[in-house]
Amino acid sequence: MAKRIGESVIALDDRVCILGHAAVGCRKESEGPLAADFDALFLDSSLGEPSWEKAESALQKAALDRALVHAGLEVGDLHCLFAGDLLNQCVASHYHLRNLGTPVLGLYGACSTMTESLLVASVFVDSGSADRCGAVTSSHFCSAERQFRYPLEYGGQRAPTAQWTATASGAAIVGVGDKRVRIADVCPGRIIDKGVTDINNMGACMAPAAADTLLRYFRDTNTQPTDYDLVVTGDLGLVGSDLLSELLKADGVDLADRHRDCGLMIYDREKQDVHAGGSGCGCSASVLCGHLLKQMDAGRIRNMLILSTGALMSPTANQQGESIPGVAHLVHLVSE
Amino acid sequence: MAKRIGESVIALDDRVCILGHAAVGCRKESEGPLAADFDALFLDSSLGEPSWEKAESALQKAALDRALVHAGLEVGDLHCLFAGDLLNQCVASHYHLRNLGTPVLGLYGACSTMTESLLVASVFVDSGSADRCGAVTSSHFCSAERQFRYPLEYGGQRAPTAQWTATASGAAIVGVGDKRVRIADVCPGRIIDKGVTDINNMGACMAPAAADTLLRYFRDTNTQPTDYDLVVTGDLGLVGSDLLSELLKADGVDLADRHRDCGLMIYDREKQDVHAGGSGCGCSASVLCGHLLKQMDAGRIRNMLILSTGALMSPTANQQGESIPGVAHLVHLVSE
Repeated sequence: MAKRIGESVIALDDRVCILGHAAVGCRKESEGPLAADFDALFLDSSLGEPSWEKAESALQKAALDRALVHAGLEVGDLHCLFAGDLLNQCVASHYHLRNLGTPVLGLYGACSTMTESLLVASVFVDSGSADRCGAVTSSHFCSAERQFRYPLEYGGQRAPTAQWTATASGAAIVGVGDKRVRIADVCPGRIIDKGVTDINNMGACMAPAAADTLLRYFRDTNTQPTDYDLVVTGDLGLVGSDLLSELLKADGVDLADRHRDCGLMIYDREKQDVHAGGSGCGCSASVLCGHLLKQMDAGRIRNMLILSTGALMSPTANQQGESIPGVAHLVHLVSE
Repeated sequence: MAKRIGESVIALDDRVCILGHAAVGCRKESEGPLAADFDALFLDSSLGEPSWEKAESALQKAALDRALVHAGLEVGDLHCLFAGDLLNQCVASHYHLRNLGTPVLGLYGACSTMTESLLVASVFVDSGSADRCGAVTSSHFCSAERQFRYPLEYGGQRAPTAQWTATASGAAIVGVGDKRVRIADVCPGRIIDKGVTDINNMGACMAPAAADTLLRYFRDTNTQPTDYDLVVTGDLGLVGSDLLSELLKADGVDLADRHRDCGLMIYDREKQDVHAGGSGCGCSASVLCGHLLKQMDAGRIRNMLILSTGALMSPTANQQGESIPGVAHLVHLVSE
């Protein structure tokens, strides 16, 4: 049975844990500093599929299949799957999950989907509604660029504040068990919109949402950044990370050396021409379900907050002059 | 604490109930047989907004505001909101929920979103993760037509199997309490794809998913249609309702006089030129949160299954030759 802490935090039963996890990526990810922590790297980012959307769907299936193997489970053992992605109607998720035999609840939180799906899955497991759930998301540079910005063939110049959508996927199996890494508590995000309208600066759209979630979390749990080994944000990139630091400092919170950002971890900005860093649902999903959870499995990270950050960016709303709201859902993981 | 029944059904604590609900619609809904059960009817379907997307967002806000009033609550009293809609990036939901002060978890289940949001909200309440949650969704004929089919200005001919997207919204507040109508149990849907590719026949895409959920539900609970006052589907319309009946009969289940479909209830097919019936997230949302829940409040319906049905239709996937998967999430409501 979950217990509320303060206004915003949900503390879970101590048997809610990560039963298995996996990350997959493509060529760009294979050239980055975390390459060794991916469970599979596909050097052909089409994965042999006839469209980028189908390639992304295949990527997501590859991550889920590997996470299930690591958990020693089959997809039919899951009581429920929580999935979503950046594509309209979440097609990357829905198409590989059809005719599977497992119920699916679709989520939309843009790039915050990894921690959103973990959060909802952990509440389902905690409540007894499911013994084992899957949480999975993905992104693909080529499907995202043509949907949100320009067709790749157009060859548009990228702004210095732009981020590179990861062609990657991450999946985690959440369930009742006694595995080393457990989900201690979670904090759902509020939708924060500070009026940013630049579709080439997602970091600035998301940083206020990340700051809001962290400030509420620290207040409700009466903790501070130094109580954790790491405080990891999803994909704020260089611009958003600086903004987050500034926003928190204005409220007297200093993340200092505890902060990492998946968007700055997944690529080498000096060598890989990714401008402000990585982004996309698959960015924090693959960094968490690959590198970070492996570190936690090994006990090298013991106590970590992770909040995937989403810019709820709609080309239609943007063309109508609207600003871009952000959201960030937090999950607190401990390794014992 | 929830309890699993069989493979698929989640039985909830008997204090999880509907604290308030409201439905709003526009002109077409005001001319239909359920007009008297709407909490507000806007005869100008732009609601004074400069775009159809913003009008839909305003419609959703109008439903949520009224549901809160009926529950005697303010939005700040909610621990979490579950929302989604048909528009890309769920903009109708996210834009009116920004800067609200309440955490938001975005869902995507196409027209199944009303029962998906009720299902997830009820698990959160059952688990102790939230004492009071909002569940809200909407659709708008004009925003949906231009996103999924043709711009209205094109004046395309509609097929006889086509349904009319409701310009409507429904909202329910789920919480711990002793109100008359409670959520007894829920059953999440599987994604079923039988290969239908016709974007003008959503009923045929969704009927197999509705049949799948109902068959699993009846099997796991060891019940049959005559154990309920009504078995209500979301928006199968005329074509989908006939198919559902056929599919269930092949498995020895006869819904007979227990079956109703929100898509056939919301409009008068003879007089309103809606072809196969109503559809859209707002269809089952407004019929449930208006007419049906009012009937349950009054004790005229005591025991009802409702499953909103979603066609996970993507114009991109469809243009790539893909078929259209369906999904249907079930909620069992009792009035005591």
